[in-house]
Amino acid sequence: MKTIILSTLVASSLMASSMVKTAVEAGLAPIPASQSELLKLIDNPKNPITDAKVELGKMLYFEPRLSKSGLISCNTCHNLAEGGDDGVSAAIGHKWTANPHHLNSPTVYNSVFFSAQFWDGRDPNLEKQAQGPIQAHPEMAATTDHVEKTVNSMPEYVRAFKKAYGADVTITFEKVADTIATFERTLVTPSRFDEYMNGCEKAMSKEELEGMKTFIDKGCATCHNGVGMGGSMNMFPVMGQFKHANVGDFKGDANGMVKVPTLRNITQTAPYFHNGTVWSLAETIKIMGETQLGIKISDKEAAQIETFLGALEGEKPAITLPMLPASTAKTPQPQMN
Amino acid sequence: MKTIILSTLVASSLMASSMVKTAVEAGLAPIPASQSELLKLIDNPKNPITDAKVELGKMLYFEPRLSKSGLISCNTCHNLAEGGDDGVSAAIGHKWTANPHHLNSPTVYNSVFFSAQFWDGRDPNLEKQAQGPIQAHPEMAATTDHVEKTVNSMPEYVRAFKKAYGADVTITFEKVADTIATFERTLVTPSRFDEYMNGCEKAMSKEELEGMKTFIDKGCATCHNGVGMGGSMNMFPVMGQFKHANVGDFKGDANGMVKVPTLRNITQTAPYFHNGTVWSLAETIKIMGETQLGIKISDKEAAQIETFLGALEGEKPAITLPMLPASTAKTPQPQMN
Repeated sequence: MKTIILSTLVASSLMASSMVKTAVEAGLAPIPASQSELLKLIDNPKNPITDAKVELGKMLYFEPRLSKSGLISCNTCHNLAEGGDDGVSAAIGHKWTANPHHLNSPTVYNSVFFSAQFWDGRDPNLEKQAQGPIQAHPEMAATTDHVEKTVNSMPEYVRAFKKAYGADVTITFEKVADTIATFERTLVTPSRFDEYMNGCEKAMSKEELEGMKTFIDKGCATCHNGVGMGGSMNMFPVMGQFKHANVGDFKGDANGMVKVPTLRNITQTAPYFHNGTVWSLAETIKIMGETQLGIKISDKEAAQIETFLGALEGEKPAITLPMLPASTAKTPQPQMN
Repeated sequence: MKTIILSTLVASSLMASSMVKTAVEAGLAPIPASQSELLKLIDNPKNPITDAKVELGKMLYFEPRLSKSGLISCNTCHNLAEGGDDGVSAAIGHKWTANPHHLNSPTVYNSVFFSAQFWDGRDPNLEKQAQGPIQAHPEMAATTDHVEKTVNSMPEYVRAFKKAYGADVTITFEKVADTIATFERTLVTPSRFDEYMNGCEKAMSKEELEGMKTFIDKGCATCHNGVGMGGSMNMFPVMGQFKHANVGDFKGDANGMVKVPTLRNITQTAPYFHNGTVWSLAETIKIMGETQLGIKISDKEAAQIETFLGALEGEKPAITLPMLPASTAKTPQPQMN
């Protein structure tokens, strides 16, 4: 009995260490355990992370008065309580307008690790990205003037900007977006996968490791790799037609390239695909086999891969709800139309 | 010099203690400083407050999947980051529908102290109240079946209900509403006014005390009294026509009675009146003089009263954003129409 247990442990241990090597060779990478190493990955030298900016950025992230209606904040579509997205097929914004391309809101968690933002990858970083939805008419529908007037109208925000950027700060639309981005840069969710890759062999179960092996063997890591487990640009579809391609008119960027969604917390961010057409993760995995790899992934293999993806559910940062300042006579009033 | 300071202190101290007496005689009452005294006021013997219920109730309060669209939670219109309401004139709900009576969302903070819920006072407590907006078509637009299926579909919720109510709990719509109400019962915001009334004479400034005296002398405490500083039913208007009465069709209950809004955090919950037609607090105070008391409140007096109301800004409970469970195959999918 002892011998059996011992040999099982040895085999498991050998498998574990060899799996780290296999995973690294396949391009998978963990969120660093060291805070200083992590900071190197998430910080922006042109907009460095500070406590004051993160605290202010959190307020602005939850601030519905940045929107034309006064009802929609970043957190509406990228709900930090709900996996960092909204759980609906196509994002819904101002006046209950669905995204005109039927695009699904991607999660904000771990988006700092992406090399491109938006489904067509048009923005290089979160600072630039944050400017988009605030102004997009089917989203927050605000003008830059509205945003600047709103923030400048509330003394508490003005004080917080001075604290974050110095007494001579001018609160511009870009500064607001930069500050939101700084908060977003901190939204990383270390998972059991990361623990495992960082040396804790017991962090993942045997089944999850088998799933990771299937994931790598099938070729999923060709695109879903790096610390972001996605976040770069790739062709979609590559090998076969996507059966829900007719929902919405999104075809990727000018070259047909689409941002690869992160697999971190993917079990918590249904529905899937750019147009949010598939609710089952197992089905999504099988479709990806057909469209991207030109292979048939069996039900068993899809279940194995799904089990592995469960190990990518990360620990979310604890968010204390910010208390937003009261409007003043100078705060632009909400407009519903 | 010493004599002057001393006599000022003595006078101030005398004024302070006499003001507590005046305030008590006028019907004003503080949130008790003692937690056990507070519990007596906020608890519901038929639905007692427990940590497990409060934690689960918080999740459900922030749970947009209780709504038909999957996008609207209690927190959408009663935003805990924003004074406990939404800062718009008429509440906006499912399909961007404005409240059909042009009713303004009241704050949830301190609503436990009210003797009646809703503008027409139709519900006696928060447990009953919480059932309304979830089902109202212009709000969350859900059926009881949708709510029960949604909550029962997620094992994490089922576990949390068992923890809160025992292993044999049946998760009904009423249980969901009860649990949300339990969380809401904890949303009380002690202020400097309360500190003052509870014996800390320095908690309010001389100007705020002068404002409280004006508030009482003018008769505002006739309706805005008790721990809730409102929350009971009263005629509106009493003495004169409300100049924005034509916005919406709300005329109170069958007897023309309207729930008196709380003045706690009133500086943070513009716009004012049942139909959200006035954004200025000073103007609101003057209108109340005309419609309710049949008197003219001067600009100076309105400013004094507004200063007093600032002392009613309370400390909000720290809310750690709940992390909601992932949908499952059994979770009803969002419906936008």
